[in-house]
Amino acid sequence: MSLKMTLPELTAFVAAEFPQVKDDFAIDAVSEDALILRLKVGDRHLRPGGTVSGPALFGLADVAVYLMVLARIGPQALAVTTNCSIDFMRKPAAGVDVLATCRLLKLGRTLAVGDVLLRSDCHDAPVARASLTYSIPPLRA
Amino acid sequence: MSLKMTLPELTAFVAAEFPQVKDDFAIDAVSEDALILRLKVGDRHLRPGGTVSGPALFGLADVAVYLMVLARIGPQALAVTTNCSIDFMRKPAAGVDVLATCRLLKLGRTLAVGDVLLRSDCHDAPVARASLTYSIPPLRA
Amino acid sequence: MSLKMTLPELTAFVAAEFPQVKDDFAIDAVSEDALILRLKVGDRHLRPGGTVSGPALFGLADVAVYLMVLARIGPQALAVTTNCSIDFMRKPAAGVDVLATCRLLKLGRTLAVGDVLLRSDCHDAPVARASLTYSIPPLRA
Amino acid sequence: MSLKMTLPELTAFVAAEFPQVKDDFAIDAVSEDALILRLKVGDRHLRPGGTVSGPALFGLADVAVYLMVLARIGPQALAVTTNCSIDFMRKPAAGVDVLATCRLLKLGRTLAVGDVLLRSDCHDAPVARASLTYSIPPLRA
Repeated sequence: MSLKMTLPELTAFVAAEFPQVKDDFAIDAVSEDALILRLKVGDRHLRPGGTVSGPALFGLADVAVYLMVLARIGPQALAVTTNCSIDFMRKPAAGVDVLATCRLLKLGRTLAVGDVLLRSDCHDAPVARASLTYSIPPLRA
Repeated sequence: MSLKMTLPELTAFVAAEFPQVKDDFAIDAVSEDALILRLKVGDRHLRPGGTVSGPALFGLADVAVYLMVLARIGPQALAVTTNCSIDFMRKPAAGVDVLATCRLLKLGRTLAVGDVLLRSDCHDAPVARASLTYSIPPLRA
Repeated sequence: MSLKMTLPELTAFVAAEFPQVKDDFAIDAVSEDALILRLKVGDRHLRPGGTVSGPALFGLADVAVYLMVLARIGPQALAVTTNCSIDFMRKPAAGVDVLATCRLLKLGRTLAVGDVLLRSDCHDAPVARASLTYSIPPLRA
Repeated sequence: MSLKMTLPELTAFVAAEFPQVKDDFAIDAVSEDALILRLKVGDRHLRPGGTVSGPALFGLADVAVYLMVLARIGPQALAVTTNCSIDFMRKPAAGVDVLATCRLLKLGRTLAVGDVLLRSDCHDAPVARASLTYSIPPLRA
Protein backbone atom coordinates (compact mmCIF):
# COMPACT_ATOMS: atom_id res chain seq x y z
CA MET A 1 0.00 0.00 0.00
CA SER A 2 1.41 3.31 -1.00
CA LEU A 3 0.58 6.63 -2.58
CA LYS A 4 0.35 6.78 -6.36
CA MET A 5 0.39 10.59 -6.33
CA THR A 6 2.32 12.95 -4.10
CA LEU A 7 1.03 16.25 -2.78
CA PRO A 8 2.70 18.28 -5.57
CA GLU A 9 1.41 15.86 -8.19
CA LEU A 10 -2.13 16.18 -6.85
CA THR A 11 -1.85 19.96 -6.84
CA ALA A 12 -0.61 19.97 -10.42
CA PHE A 13 -3.41 17.59 -11.43
CA VAL A 14 -6.08 19.91 -10.02
CA ALA A 15 -4.52 22.92 -11.75
CA ALA A 16 -4.49 21.13 -15.10
CA GLU A 17 -7.85 19.34 -14.98
CA PHE A 18 -10.00 21.72 -12.94
CA PRO A 19 -8.88 25.24 -13.84
CA GLN A 20 -12.27 26.62 -12.69
CA VAL A 21 -11.75 25.57 -9.08
CA LYS A 22 -7.99 25.37 -8.68
CA ASP A 23 -7.84 28.71 -6.88
CA ASP A 24 -10.47 27.56 -4.39
CA PHE A 25 -8.43 24.76 -2.85
CA ALA A 26 -5.04 23.96 -1.39
CA ILE A 27 -3.92 20.50 -0.30
CA ASP A 28 -2.37 20.87 3.14
CA ALA A 29 -1.38 17.22 3.68
CA VAL A 30 -1.79 13.75 2.24
CA SER A 31 -0.95 10.29 3.52
CA GLU A 32 -2.04 6.77 2.66
CA ASP A 33 -5.37 7.04 4.40
CA ALA A 34 -5.96 10.72 5.09
CA LEU A 35 -5.90 14.06 3.29
CA ILE A 36 -6.40 17.64 4.46
CA LEU A 37 -7.89 20.06 1.95
CA ARG A 38 -8.27 23.80 2.51
CA LEU A 39 -11.03 25.94 1.08
CA LYS A 40 -9.44 29.33 0.52
CA VAL A 41 -12.55 31.26 1.39
CA GLY A 42 -13.33 34.23 -0.85
CA ASP A 43 -16.38 36.35 -1.53
CA ARG A 44 -17.72 33.88 -4.10
CA HIS A 45 -18.11 31.24 -1.34
CA LEU A 46 -20.17 33.42 0.96
CA ARG A 47 -23.86 33.81 1.63
CA PRO A 48 -25.40 37.02 3.00
CA GLY A 49 -24.05 37.58 6.50
CA GLY A 50 -20.62 36.34 5.51
CA THR A 51 -21.09 32.64 6.15
CA VAL A 52 -19.64 30.01 3.80
CA SER A 53 -22.41 28.61 1.58
CA GLY A 54 -23.69 25.03 1.65
CA PRO A 55 -22.63 24.31 -1.93
CA ALA A 56 -19.09 25.54 -1.13
CA LEU A 57 -18.90 23.19 1.87
CA PHE A 58 -20.33 20.33 -0.19
CA GLY A 59 -17.77 21.00 -2.91
CA LEU A 60 -14.94 21.02 -0.38
CA ALA A 61 -15.97 17.62 1.01
CA ASP A 62 -16.44 16.21 -2.47
CA VAL A 63 -13.04 17.32 -3.76
CA ALA A 64 -11.31 16.11 -0.57
CA VAL A 65 -12.51 12.54 -1.04
CA TYR A 66 -11.87 12.71 -4.79
CA LEU A 67 -8.24 13.72 -4.26
CA MET A 68 -7.81 11.09 -1.53
CA VAL A 69 -8.99 8.41 -3.97
CA LEU A 70 -6.74 9.72 -6.75
CA ALA A 71 -3.77 9.77 -4.38
CA ARG A 72 -4.24 6.03 -4.00
CA ILE A 73 -5.27 4.89 -7.49
CA GLY A 74 -3.46 7.46 -9.62
CA PRO A 75 -4.67 10.02 -12.14
CA GLN A 76 -5.63 7.59 -14.90
CA ALA A 77 -9.07 6.74 -13.55
CA LEU A 78 -12.17 8.86 -13.79
CA ALA A 79 -13.93 8.47 -10.45
CA VAL A 80 -17.42 9.93 -10.10
CA THR A 81 -19.40 10.75 -6.95
CA THR A 82 -22.43 8.50 -6.59
CA ASN A 83 -23.62 9.43 -3.08
CA CYS A 84 -23.06 12.08 -0.45
CA SER A 85 -24.56 12.42 2.97
CA ILE A 86 -23.74 15.66 4.75
CA ASP A 87 -24.70 17.06 8.16
CA PHE A 88 -24.38 20.79 8.72
CA MET A 89 -23.75 21.21 12.44
CA ARG A 90 -22.42 24.69 13.14
CA LYS A 91 -22.02 28.00 11.39
CA PRO A 92 -18.53 28.41 9.93
CA ALA A 93 -16.45 31.11 11.61
CA ALA A 94 -16.32 34.36 9.65
CA GLY A 95 -13.22 35.39 7.78
CA VAL A 96 -11.24 32.15 7.99
CA ASP A 97 -10.62 29.19 5.67
CA VAL A 98 -12.42 25.89 6.11
CA LEU A 99 -10.37 22.69 6.41
CA ALA A 100 -11.59 19.24 5.38
CA THR A 101 -9.97 16.23 7.01
CA CYS A 102 -10.73 13.14 4.93
CA ARG A 103 -10.36 9.49 5.95
CA LEU A 104 -10.44 6.77 3.32
CA LEU A 105 -12.61 4.00 4.79
CA LYS A 106 -12.82 1.69 1.81
CA LEU A 107 -11.01 1.42 -1.50
CA GLY A 108 -12.56 -1.44 -3.43
CA ARG A 109 -12.33 -2.42 -7.06
CA THR A 110 -15.38 -0.42 -8.06
CA LEU A 111 -16.39 1.66 -5.03
CA ALA A 112 -14.49 3.91 -2.63
CA VAL A 113 -15.91 5.40 0.57
CA GLY A 114 -14.48 8.28 2.54
CA ASP A 115 -15.68 10.48 5.33
CA VAL A 116 -14.79 14.08 6.07
CA LEU A 117 -14.88 16.48 8.99
CA LEU A 118 -15.04 20.16 8.07
CA ARG A 119 -13.70 22.72 10.54
CA SER A 120 -13.08 26.44 10.42
CA ASP A 121 -9.33 27.08 10.51
CA CYS A 122 -8.03 27.15 14.11
CA HIS A 123 -11.38 25.91 15.48
CA ASP A 124 -12.02 22.49 17.01
CA ALA A 125 -15.76 21.99 16.76
CA PRO A 126 -16.74 20.59 13.35
CA VAL A 127 -18.82 22.76 11.01
CA ALA A 128 -20.05 19.73 9.10
CA ARG A 129 -19.46 16.06 8.49
CA ALA A 130 -19.88 14.25 5.21
CA SER A 131 -19.49 10.77 3.79
CA LEU A 132 -19.11 10.15 0.09
CA THR A 133 -19.05 7.18 -2.25
CA TYR A 134 -17.11 7.26 -5.48
CA SER A 135 -17.60 4.83 -8.33
CA ILE A 136 -14.32 3.80 -9.94
CA PRO A 137 -14.68 2.78 -13.57
CA PRO A 138 -12.71 -0.23 -14.82
CA LEU A 139 -9.34 0.57 -16.35
CA ARG A 140 -9.18 0.39 -20.12
CA ALA A 141 -6.29 -1.56 -21.59
CA MET B 1 -53.35 24.26 4.99
CA SER B 2 -52.44 26.87 2.45
CA LEU B 3 -49.54 28.75 0.91
CA LYS B 4 -48.07 31.64 2.88
CA MET B 5 -46.10 32.87 -0.13
CA THR B 6 -47.08 32.91 -3.80
CA LEU B 7 -44.73 32.24 -6.68
CA PRO B 8 -44.10 35.97 -7.32
CA GLU B 9 -43.53 36.56 -3.60
CA LEU B 10 -40.99 33.74 -3.47
CA THR B 11 -39.23 35.08 -6.54
CA ALA B 12 -39.07 38.57 -5.02
CA PHE B 13 -37.79 37.13 -1.74
CA VAL B 14 -34.90 35.34 -3.48
CA ALA B 15 -34.01 38.49 -5.41
CA ALA B 16 -33.94 40.57 -2.22
CA GLU B 17 -32.26 38.13 0.17
CA PHE B 18 -29.93 36.16 -2.11
CA PRO B 19 -28.71 38.58 -4.76
CA GLN B 20 -25.66 36.33 -5.37
CA VAL B 21 -27.74 33.46 -6.66
CA LYS B 22 -30.95 35.04 -7.88
CA ASP B 23 -29.87 34.78 -11.53
CA ASP B 24 -29.20 31.05 -11.11
CA PHE B 25 -32.76 30.03 -10.36
CA ALA B 26 -36.33 30.43 -11.58
CA ILE B 27 -39.37 29.05 -9.80
CA ASP B 28 -41.49 27.27 -12.40
CA ALA B 29 -44.35 26.20 -10.13
CA VAL B 30 -45.40 26.00 -6.49
CA SER B 31 -48.31 24.33 -4.71
CA GLU B 32 -49.03 23.30 -1.13
CA ASP B 33 -46.82 20.25 -1.25
CA ALA B 34 -44.65 20.59 -4.34
CA LEU B 35 -42.34 23.11 -6.01
CA ILE B 36 -40.42 23.08 -9.29
CA LEU B 37 -37.18 25.03 -9.39
CA ARG B 38 -35.08 25.60 -12.51
CA LEU B 39 -31.32 25.95 -12.56
CA LYS B 40 -30.63 28.31 -15.43
CA VAL B 41 -27.42 26.60 -16.42
CA GLY B 42 -24.54 28.90 -17.31
CA ASP B 43 -20.80 28.49 -17.67
CA ARG B 44 -20.24 29.03 -13.95
CA HIS B 45 -22.19 25.80 -13.21
CA LEU B 46 -20.15 23.59 -15.51
CA ARG B 47 -17.24 21.23 -15.01
CA PRO B 48 -14.75 20.41 -17.77
CA GLY B 49 -16.60 18.50 -20.48
CA GLY B 50 -19.66 20.70 -20.08
CA THR B 51 -21.45 18.76 -17.35
CA VAL B 52 -23.23 20.54 -14.50
CA SER B 53 -21.10 20.38 -11.35
CA GLY B 54 -22.00 18.49 -8.18
CA PRO B 55 -22.09 21.66 -6.04
CA ALA B 56 -24.49 23.30 -8.54
CA LEU B 57 -26.83 20.27 -8.35
CA PHE B 58 -26.56 20.23 -4.55
CA GLY B 59 -27.37 23.94 -4.43
CA LEU B 60 -30.39 23.46 -6.69
CA ALA B 61 -31.81 20.72 -4.44
CA ASP B 62 -31.08 22.77 -1.32
CA VAL B 63 -32.77 25.92 -2.58
CA ALA B 64 -35.78 23.96 -3.88
CA VAL B 65 -36.56 22.54 -0.44
CA TYR B 66 -35.80 25.88 1.22
CA LEU B 67 -38.31 27.71 -0.97
CA MET B 68 -40.89 24.94 -0.53
CA VAL B 69 -40.60 25.38 3.26
CA LEU B 70 -40.82 29.19 2.99
CA ALA B 71 -43.89 28.90 0.78
CA ARG B 72 -45.60 27.15 3.66
CA ILE B 73 -44.26 28.96 6.74
CA GLY B 74 -43.69 32.41 5.28
CA PRO B 75 -40.57 34.58 5.02
CA GLN B 76 -40.26 35.47 8.68
CA ALA B 77 -38.41 32.33 9.73
CA LEU B 78 -34.78 31.54 9.16
CA ALA B 79 -34.65 27.87 8.23
CA VAL B 80 -31.22 26.21 7.98
CA THR B 81 -30.22 22.96 6.29
CA THR B 82 -29.13 20.34 8.81
CA ASN B 83 -28.81 17.25 6.60
CA CYS B 84 -28.68 16.34 2.94
CA SER B 85 -28.39 12.96 1.31
CA ILE B 86 -27.89 13.05 -2.44
CA ASP B 87 -27.46 10.30 -5.04
CA PHE B 88 -25.93 11.22 -8.37
CA MET B 89 -27.37 8.77 -10.89
CA ARG B 90 -26.82 10.03 -14.42
CA LYS B 91 -24.82 12.69 -16.23
CA PRO B 92 -26.91 15.82 -16.86
CA ALA B 93 -27.64 16.45 -20.54
CA ALA B 94 -25.41 19.11 -22.10
CA GLY B 95 -26.72 22.55 -22.87
CA VAL B 96 -30.05 22.39 -21.06
CA ASP B 97 -31.38 23.59 -17.70
CA VAL B 98 -31.84 21.24 -14.76
CA LEU B 99 -35.25 21.07 -13.04
CA ALA B 100 -35.77 20.12 -9.40
CA THR B 101 -39.16 18.73 -8.40
CA CYS B 102 -39.53 18.98 -4.64
CA ARG B 103 -42.08 17.20 -2.43
CA LEU B 104 -42.62 18.35 1.13
CA LEU B 105 -42.84 15.16 3.21
CA LYS B 106 -42.95 16.66 6.68
CA LEU B 107 -43.47 20.11 8.09
CA GLY B 108 -43.16 19.91 11.86
CA ARG B 109 -42.71 22.56 14.48
CA THR B 110 -38.93 22.37 14.42
CA LEU B 111 -38.01 20.12 11.47
CA ALA B 112 -39.06 19.98 7.83
CA VAL B 113 -38.16 17.18 5.39
CA GLY B 114 -38.40 17.31 1.62
CA ASP B 115 -37.17 15.19 -1.22
CA VAL B 116 -36.19 16.23 -4.70
CA LEU B 117 -35.78 14.66 -8.12
CA LEU B 118 -33.40 16.48 -10.48
CA ARG B 119 -33.89 16.06 -14.22
CA SER B 120 -32.39 17.68 -17.28
CA ASP B 121 -35.04 19.80 -19.00
CA CYS B 122 -37.16 17.69 -21.37
CA HIS B 123 -35.60 14.44 -20.08
CA ASP B 124 -37.39 11.79 -18.00
CA ALA B 125 -34.63 9.85 -16.31
CA PRO B 126 -33.51 11.57 -13.09
CA VAL B 127 -29.98 12.99 -12.90
CA ALA B 128 -30.01 12.88 -9.09
CA ARG B 129 -32.24 12.49 -6.08
CA ALA B 130 -31.83 14.26 -2.78
CA SER B 131 -33.53 14.48 0.58
CA LEU B 132 -32.98 17.39 2.93
CA THR B 133 -33.85 18.31 6.47
CA TYR B 134 -34.33 21.90 7.52
CA SER B 135 -34.33 23.10 11.09
CA ILE B 136 -36.96 25.77 11.74
CA PRO B 137 -36.06 28.09 14.61
CA PRO B 138 -38.80 29.12 17.00
CA LEU B 139 -40.57 32.37 16.17
CA ARG B 140 -39.60 35.34 18.29
CA ALA B 141 -42.45 37.29 19.77
CA MET C 1 -38.07 -3.39 -20.40
CA SER C 2 -40.04 -5.97 -18.52
CA LEU C 3 -40.21 -7.90 -15.28
CA LYS C 4 -37.92 -10.89 -14.87
CA MET C 5 -39.83 -12.14 -11.81
CA THR C 6 -43.57 -12.04 -11.14
CA LEU C 7 -45.13 -11.38 -7.76
CA PRO C 8 -45.57 -15.13 -6.99
CA GLU C 9 -41.99 -15.83 -8.08
CA LEU C 10 -40.67 -13.07 -5.80
CA THR C 11 -42.73 -14.42 -2.91
CA ALA C 12 -41.42 -17.96 -3.48
CA PHE C 13 -37.86 -16.62 -3.72
CA VAL C 14 -38.12 -14.90 -0.34
CA ALA C 15 -39.59 -18.04 1.25
CA ALA C 16 -36.76 -20.20 -0.10
CA GLU C 17 -33.80 -17.87 0.43
CA PHE C 18 -34.80 -15.92 3.54
CA PRO C 19 -36.73 -18.33 5.76
CA GLN C 20 -35.91 -16.17 8.80
CA VAL C 21 -37.86 -13.19 7.53
CA LYS C 22 -40.41 -14.64 5.13
CA ASP C 23 -43.21 -14.33 7.69
CA ASP C 24 -42.40 -10.64 8.21
CA PHE C 25 -43.22 -9.52 4.69
CA ALA C 26 -45.87 -9.75 1.99
CA ILE C 27 -45.52 -8.31 -1.50
CA ASP C 28 -48.72 -6.40 -2.25
CA ALA C 29 -47.86 -5.29 -5.80
CA VAL C 30 -45.04 -5.13 -8.30
CA SER C 31 -44.62 -3.41 -11.65
CA GLU C 32 -41.68 -2.44 -13.83
CA ASP C 33 -40.70 0.52 -11.73
CA ALA C 34 -42.56 0.19 -8.43
CA LEU C 35 -43.18 -2.36 -5.68
CA ILE C 36 -45.31 -2.31 -2.54
CA LEU C 37 -44.06 -4.37 0.39
CA ARG C 38 -46.01 -4.94 3.60
CA LEU C 39 -44.45 -5.42 7.02
CA LYS C 40 -46.82 -7.75 8.84
CA VAL C 41 -46.26 -6.12 12.19
CA GLY C 42 -45.92 -8.51 15.13
CA ASP C 43 -44.62 -8.23 18.67
CA ARG C 44 -41.03 -8.87 17.54
CA HIS C 45 -41.09 -5.59 15.55
CA LEU C 46 -42.21 -3.41 18.44
CA ARG C 47 -40.43 -1.16 20.90
CA PRO C 48 -41.82 -0.33 24.35
CA GLY C 49 -45.01 1.65 23.88
CA GLY C 50 -46.02 -0.44 20.90
CA THR C 51 -44.27 1.50 18.16
CA VAL C 52 -42.54 -0.27 15.27
CA SER C 53 -38.77 -0.25 15.84
CA GLY C 54 -36.24 1.58 13.71
CA PRO C 55 -34.46 -1.61 12.63
CA ALA C 56 -37.80 -3.11 11.52
CA LEU C 57 -38.51 -0.01 9.38
CA PHE C 58 -34.98 -0.05 8.00
CA GLY C 59 -35.35 -3.75 7.13
CA LEU C 60 -38.65 -3.10 5.39
CA ALA C 61 -37.16 -0.37 3.19
CA ASP C 62 -34.09 -2.51 2.47
CA VAL C 63 -36.08 -5.58 1.41
CA ALA C 64 -38.47 -3.47 -0.70
CA VAL C 65 -35.65 -2.11 -2.86
CA TYR C 66 -33.93 -5.51 -2.96
CA LEU C 67 -37.07 -7.21 -4.32
CA MET C 68 -37.66 -4.36 -6.78
CA VAL C 69 -34.15 -4.89 -8.15
CA LEU C 70 -34.60 -8.67 -8.32
CA ALA C 71 -37.93 -8.23 -10.11
CA ARG C 72 -35.99 -6.48 -12.87
CA ILE C 73 -32.73 -8.43 -13.04
CA GLY C 74 -33.90 -11.88 -11.96
CA PRO C 75 -32.87 -14.12 -9.08
CA GLN C 76 -29.45 -15.10 -10.39
CA ALA C 77 -27.61 -12.05 -9.10
CA LEU C 78 -26.52 -11.38 -5.56
CA ALA C 79 -27.20 -7.70 -4.96
CA VAL C 80 -25.89 -6.15 -1.75
CA THR C 81 -26.87 -2.90 -0.05
CA THR C 82 -24.03 -0.39 -0.10
CA ASN C 83 -25.78 2.74 1.22
CA CYS C 84 -28.99 3.73 2.93
CA SER C 85 -30.21 7.14 3.97
CA ILE C 86 -33.37 7.12 6.03
CA ASP C 87 -35.45 9.91 7.60
CA PHE C 88 -37.83 9.03 10.40
CA MET C 89 -40.63 11.58 10.24
CA ARG C 90 -43.63 10.37 12.24
CA LYS C 91 -44.48 7.67 14.75
CA PRO C 92 -46.07 4.64 13.08
CA ALA C 93 -49.74 4.11 14.00
CA ALA C 94 -50.24 1.42 16.61
CA GLY C 95 -51.64 -1.96 15.69
CA VAL C 96 -51.42 -1.72 11.90
CA ASP C 97 -49.02 -2.95 9.24
CA VAL C 98 -46.49 -0.66 7.60
CA LEU C 99 -46.40 -0.39 3.80
CA ALA C 100 -43.32 0.48 1.76
CA THR C 101 -43.82 1.98 -1.69
CA CYS C 102 -40.58 1.66 -3.66
CA ARG C 103 -39.62 3.46 -6.86
CA LEU C 104 -36.68 2.24 -8.90
CA LEU C 105 -34.79 5.39 -9.93
CA LYS C 106 -31.76 3.82 -11.56
CA LEU C 107 -30.84 0.34 -12.71
CA GLY C 108 -27.32 0.48 -14.04
CA ARG C 109 -24.83 -2.26 -14.85
CA THR C 110 -23.28 -2.19 -11.40
CA LEU C 111 -25.46 0.09 -9.23
CA ALA C 112 -29.19 0.35 -8.61
CA VAL C 113 -30.88 3.17 -6.70
CA GLY C 114 -34.38 3.13 -5.29
CA ASP C 115 -36.34 5.27 -2.91
CA VAL C 116 -39.10 4.27 -0.54
CA LEU C 117 -41.96 5.92 1.33
CA LEU C 118 -43.13 4.06 4.45
CA ARG C 119 -46.71 4.59 5.62
CA SER C 120 -48.88 2.98 8.27
CA ASP C 121 -51.64 0.98 6.59
CA CYS C 122 -54.62 3.23 5.73
CA HIS C 123 -52.68 6.39 6.64
CA ASP C 124 -51.49 9.04 4.20
CA ALA C 125 -48.69 10.85 6.00
CA PRO C 126 -45.37 9.05 5.58
CA VAL C 127 -43.72 7.49 8.64
CA ALA C 128 -40.31 7.52 6.99
CA ARG C 129 -38.51 7.91 3.70
CA ALA C 130 -35.43 6.04 2.62
CA SER C 131 -33.14 5.83 -0.38
CA LEU C 132 -30.89 2.84 -0.95
CA THR C 133 -28.10 1.87 -3.30
CA TYR C 134 -27.48 -1.73 -4.27
CA SER C 135 -24.29 -3.01 -5.83
CA ILE C 136 -24.96 -5.60 -8.53
CA PRO C 137 -22.07 -8.02 -9.01
CA PRO C 138 -21.11 -9.00 -12.55
CA LEU C 139 -22.75 -12.20 -13.86
CA ARG C 140 -20.55 -15.25 -14.01
CA ALA C 141 -20.61 -17.14 -17.26
CA MET D 1 -18.73 19.16 30.41
CA SER D 2 -19.14 15.81 32.04
CA LEU D 3 -21.06 12.54 31.92
CA LYS D 4 -24.58 12.49 33.33
CA MET D 5 -24.68 8.68 33.29
CA THR D 6 -21.91 6.22 34.01
CA LEU D 7 -21.39 2.94 32.20
CA PRO D 8 -23.25 0.90 34.88
CA GLU D 9 -26.10 3.42 34.89
CA LEU D 10 -26.42 3.20 31.13
CA THR D 11 -26.42 -0.59 31.27
CA ALA D 12 -29.13 -0.57 33.94
CA PHE D 13 -31.16 1.92 31.89
CA VAL D 14 -31.11 -0.32 28.82
CA ALA D 15 -32.11 -3.35 30.92
CA ALA D 16 -35.05 -1.47 32.43
CA GLU D 17 -36.31 0.41 29.39
CA PHE D 18 -35.48 -1.93 26.51
CA PRO D 19 -35.94 -5.48 27.82
CA GLN D 20 -36.40 -6.77 24.28
CA VAL D 21 -32.90 -5.83 23.20
CA LYS D 22 -30.91 -5.74 26.42
CA ASP D 23 -29.33 -9.13 25.71
CA ASP D 24 -28.17 -7.95 22.28
CA PHE D 25 -25.82 -5.26 23.53
CA ALA D 26 -23.01 -4.60 25.98
CA ILE D 27 -21.43 -1.21 26.59
CA ASP D 28 -17.67 -1.70 26.50
CA ALA D 29 -16.64 1.88 27.24
CA VAL D 30 -17.97 5.40 27.56
CA SER D 31 -16.35 8.82 27.84
CA GLU D 32 -17.47 12.39 27.29
CA ASP D 33 -17.33 12.20 23.54
CA ALA D 34 -17.08 8.51 22.64
CA LEU D 35 -18.81 5.22 23.39
CA ILE D 36 -18.09 1.63 22.37
CA LEU D 37 -21.08 -0.67 22.04
CA ARG D 38 -20.86 -4.42 21.39
CA LEU D 39 -23.42 -6.44 19.46
CA LYS D 40 -23.36 -9.86 21.07
CA VAL D 41 -23.99 -11.70 17.85
CA GLY D 42 -26.47 -14.58 18.05
CA ASP D 43 -28.44 -16.59 15.53
CA ARG D 44 -31.23 -14.02 15.50
CA HIS D 45 -28.84 -11.43 14.02
CA LEU D 46 -27.70 -13.59 11.11
CA ARG D 47 -28.72 -13.84 7.48
CA PRO D 48 -28.27 -17.06 5.43
CA GLY D 49 -24.56 -17.73 5.11
CA GLY D 50 -23.92 -16.59 8.67
CA THR D 51 -23.41 -12.89 8.06
CA VAL D 52 -24.81 -10.27 10.44
CA SER D 53 -27.95 -8.72 8.91
CA GLY D 54 -28.32 -5.11 7.80
CA PRO D 55 -31.06 -4.34 10.33
CA ALA D 56 -28.87 -5.71 13.15
CA LEU D 57 -25.99 -3.43 12.07
CA PHE D 58 -28.37 -0.47 11.73
CA GLY D 59 -29.77 -1.16 15.20
CA LEU D 60 -26.26 -1.34 16.66
CA ALA D 61 -25.31 2.05 15.21
CA ASP D 62 -28.63 3.56 16.31
CA VAL D 63 -28.36 2.36 19.90
CA ALA D 64 -24.71 3.43 20.13
CA VAL D 65 -25.51 7.05 19.33
CA TYR D 66 -28.63 6.96 21.50
CA LEU D 67 -26.62 5.82 24.54
CA MET D 68 -23.89 8.34 23.79
CA VAL D 69 -26.49 11.12 23.85
CA LEU D 70 -28.08 9.80 27.05
CA ALA D 71 -24.68 9.60 28.71
CA ARG D 72 -24.42 13.35 28.19
CA ILE D 73 -27.95 14.58 28.78
CA GLY D 74 -29.19 12.01 31.28
CA PRO D 75 -32.09 9.57 31.22
CA GLN D 76 -34.88 12.10 31.57
CA ALA D 77 -35.11 13.03 27.93
CA LEU D 78 -36.73 11.00 25.20
CA ALA D 79 -34.47 11.39 22.18
CA VAL D 80 -35.69 10.04 18.85
CA THR D 81 -33.73 9.23 15.70
CA THR D 82 -34.62 11.58 12.85
CA ASN D 83 -32.00 10.62 10.25
CA CYS D 84 -29.48 7.88 9.57
CA SER D 85 -27.05 7.52 6.72
CA ILE D 86 -25.21 4.20 6.64
CA ASP D 87 -22.59 2.77 4.26
CA PHE D 88 -22.07 -0.99 4.23
CA MET D 89 -18.48 -1.50 3.19
CA ARG D 90 -17.38 -5.06 4.02
CA LYS D 91 -18.91 -8.34 5.08
CA PRO D 92 -18.73 -8.83 8.84
CA ALA D 93 -16.42 -11.65 9.93
CA ALA D 94 -18.26 -14.85 10.83
CA GLY D 95 -18.65 -15.93 14.41
CA VAL D 96 -17.51 -12.77 16.16
CA ASP D 97 -19.21 -9.79 17.79
CA VAL D 98 -19.48 -6.44 16.04
CA LEU D 99 -18.22 -3.31 17.82
CA ALA D 100 -19.56 0.19 17.26
CA THR D 101 -17.28 3.12 18.06
CA CYS D 102 -19.37 6.27 18.35
CA ARG D 103 -18.19 9.88 18.32
CA LEU D 104 -20.48 12.65 19.43
CA LEU D 105 -19.99 15.47 16.91
CA LYS D 106 -22.70 17.84 18.06
CA LEU D 107 -24.89 18.13 21.11
CA GLY D 108 -27.20 21.07 20.61
CA ARG D 109 -30.33 22.14 22.41
CA THR D 110 -32.62 20.27 20.02
CA LEU D 111 -30.38 18.16 17.77
CA ALA D 112 -27.49 15.78 18.41
CA VAL D 113 -25.26 14.28 15.72
CA GLY D 114 -22.97 11.30 16.10
CA ASP D 115 -21.05 9.08 13.77
CA VAL D 116 -20.14 5.44 14.17
CA LEU D 117 -17.61 2.99 12.78
CA LEU D 118 -18.65 -0.67 12.95
CA ARG D 119 -15.92 -3.32 13.04
CA SER D 120 -15.89 -7.07 13.58
CA ASP D 121 -14.24 -7.82 16.92
CA CYS D 122 -10.43 -8.02 16.55
CA HIS D 123 -10.58 -6.70 12.97
CA ASP D 124 -9.35 -3.29 11.79
CA ALA D 125 -11.18 -2.66 8.54
CA PRO D 126 -14.62 -1.16 9.13
CA VAL D 127 -17.70 -3.20 8.21
CA ALA D 128 -19.85 -0.09 8.00
CA ARG D 129 -20.01 3.59 8.86
CA ALA D 130 -23.09 5.47 9.94
CA SER D 131 -24.08 8.97 10.99
CA LEU D 132 -27.23 9.66 12.94
CA THR D 133 -29.22 12.66 14.06
CA TYR D 134 -31.30 12.59 17.21
CA SER D 135 -34.00 15.09 18.03
CA ILE D 136 -33.99 16.05 21.71
CA PRO D 137 -37.38 17.18 22.98
CA PRO D 138 -37.53 20.15 25.33
CA LEU D 139 -37.45 19.32 29.04
CA ARG D 140 -40.72 19.60 30.87
CA ALA D 141 -40.63 21.50 34.07
